[in-house]
Amino acid sequence: MKILQYKENEQIKLAVKRHDGVIPLALLDAGFPGDMKTLIEKGMAVLNELSKKMSAYNGPTIPLDSIEFALPVNNPERFLCLGLNYVDHAKEGNNSLPEHPAIFMRTPTSLAAHNQSLLLPKVNNKLDYEAELLVVIGKQAKYLTVDNALDAVWGYSLFNDGSVRPYQRWSTQWTMGKNFDQTGGFGPWIVTPDELPLGAKGLNIEMRLNDQVMQQANTDDMVFDVVNTLVQISECMTLQPGDCIAMGTPSGVGYPRNPPVFLQPGDIAEVEVQGVGILRNGIVLEE
Amino acid sequence: MKILQYKENEQIKLAVKRHDGVIPLALLDAGFPGDMKTLIEKGMAVLNELSKKMSAYNGPTIPLDSIEFALPVNNPERFLCLGLNYVDHAKEGNNSLPEHPAIFMRTPTSLAAHNQSLLLPKVNNKLDYEAELLVVIGKQAKYLTVDNALDAVWGYSLFNDGSVRPYQRWSTQWTMGKNFDQTGGFGPWIVTPDELPLGAKGLNIEMRLNDQVMQQANTDDMVFDVVNTLVQISECMTLQPGDCIAMGTPSGVGYPRNPPVFLQPGDIAEVEVQGVGILRNGIVLEE
Repeated sequence: MKILQYKENEQIKLAVKRHDGVIPLALLDAGFPGDMKTLIEKGMAVLNELSKKMSAYNGPTIPLDSIEFALPVNNPERFLCLGLNYVDHAKEGNNSLPEHPAIFMRTPTSLAAHNQSLLLPKVNNKLDYEAELLVVIGKQAKYLTVDNALDAVWGYSLFNDGSVRPYQRWSTQWTMGKNFDQTGGFGPWIVTPDELPLGAKGLNIEMRLNDQVMQQANTDDMVFDVVNTLVQISECMTLQPGDCIAMGTPSGVGYPRNPPVFLQPGDIAEVEVQGVGILRNGIVLEE
Repeated sequence: MKILQYKENEQIKLAVKRHDGVIPLALLDAGFPGDMKTLIEKGMAVLNELSKKMSAYNGPTIPLDSIEFALPVNNPERFLCLGLNYVDHAKEGNNSLPEHPAIFMRTPTSLAAHNQSLLLPKVNNKLDYEAELLVVIGKQAKYLTVDNALDAVWGYSLFNDGSVRPYQRWSTQWTMGKNFDQTGGFGPWIVTPDELPLGAKGLNIEMRLNDQVMQQANTDDMVFDVVNTLVQISECMTLQPGDCIAMGTPSGVGYPRNPPVFLQPGDIAEVEVQGVGILRNGIVLEE
């Protein structure tokens, strides 16, 4: 299943995607929660119920291109991101391969929904793209093991880890360049794990800028795969339902190119991961 | 004024501190909000109202030592921390002075209230202390200037930026060592700016471990003071009411000592900043 949040009259609503459009969860059963985090907090069992109701549903759907997408999780308490997690991307920045994942955080105000514009900051025009697979956590989890780590995964989504490069290098810590307002694309939906290979392995990942392929790799090229990442992070902190982990980006980002490429007003950036979908964001200059 | 959150029957409540104990805000006026973030969102004007009601109050107070302190802000959307922000501390770690603040984030689950224990992780016994001044943001703020930055400050508090050093150095990014569950002391209250020098300048700051002074400095020794820090951060992200910014720690932390000092079960760690108060946390081993 592909589950998404959309906005109607400024209210967040939940829906599932079908081939012919989206079905609001409220039409499937009035008992379903109204937002993704509450749905996730109900536990994995709610997915079976949702799946059954969806199979039996023969009411109206809403066309996909008529909805205003919201962030798949609009209030994640933890939004963690891995840096340098593809072998080639680490090399293009002249970084040696890490022994542990390099992890930073993004704040919710730095995120943008599918179809929402990414903001090119007034103060700096070096906003770079980064195509990423994103993991959404389904339950409270500490000390996960290689054997049970994937039980904690609610689903997968897409992320464009928009990075203002000069601010990312302000200091040793990347936080500032990764947290400009509305610079990180996240969406369009969450795909449940049953639709993908175990641990989202072996999936093609691609970034397109104005239809030109800029990054192309496979999730198998990750230095730390989903299982290993969850084991390491949950050694430090208790993960909670709705937490998001962006799995890092492959080579082909803009800044090390010759000449460098940065996002310009009017550009269209697309992240695609096989079986997950396409995340699309235009670029506009901050007002 | 000193405003705090405490827990009664598992519920968060707001109170002001007076010389003879604390006064629940609900006793001052039923119209006051029940939690700090909502109080802050009411704007600075609510402080005048609160101050008037407090002066006129002659009802009962609750003894300070009988309340269970909660985090002063229990759900900050952004909890930002500065690293290497005192000249001497940067030197003790063999770090050169930064041109911009080194900023990382902490997640709410990594925090501990005044009098609550800090957890020494099972997986690593190198938990270090860091005494810090903390700034609480009072209003939405972007592009603050040197002239108006302090208008965005709701008040000041204390922070012990508990750091699991080997995990802090896992990678170039400090996030993991700074986000172990319940390792960062925060409290006991928020002091409104009228009680302190402008920008909390010229205040003695001290860390005591089992009554022994481990860190002793002055907020004037900061590389980036409160004003400069707010100007730089708000260039990147829009700050919101209730956001917290921990201002970094002076020299004297445990790891570079000979022999190194780390927090042990049974230890008592105290952070004191002149005019703000004392934050006290015991240390217990994670179960």
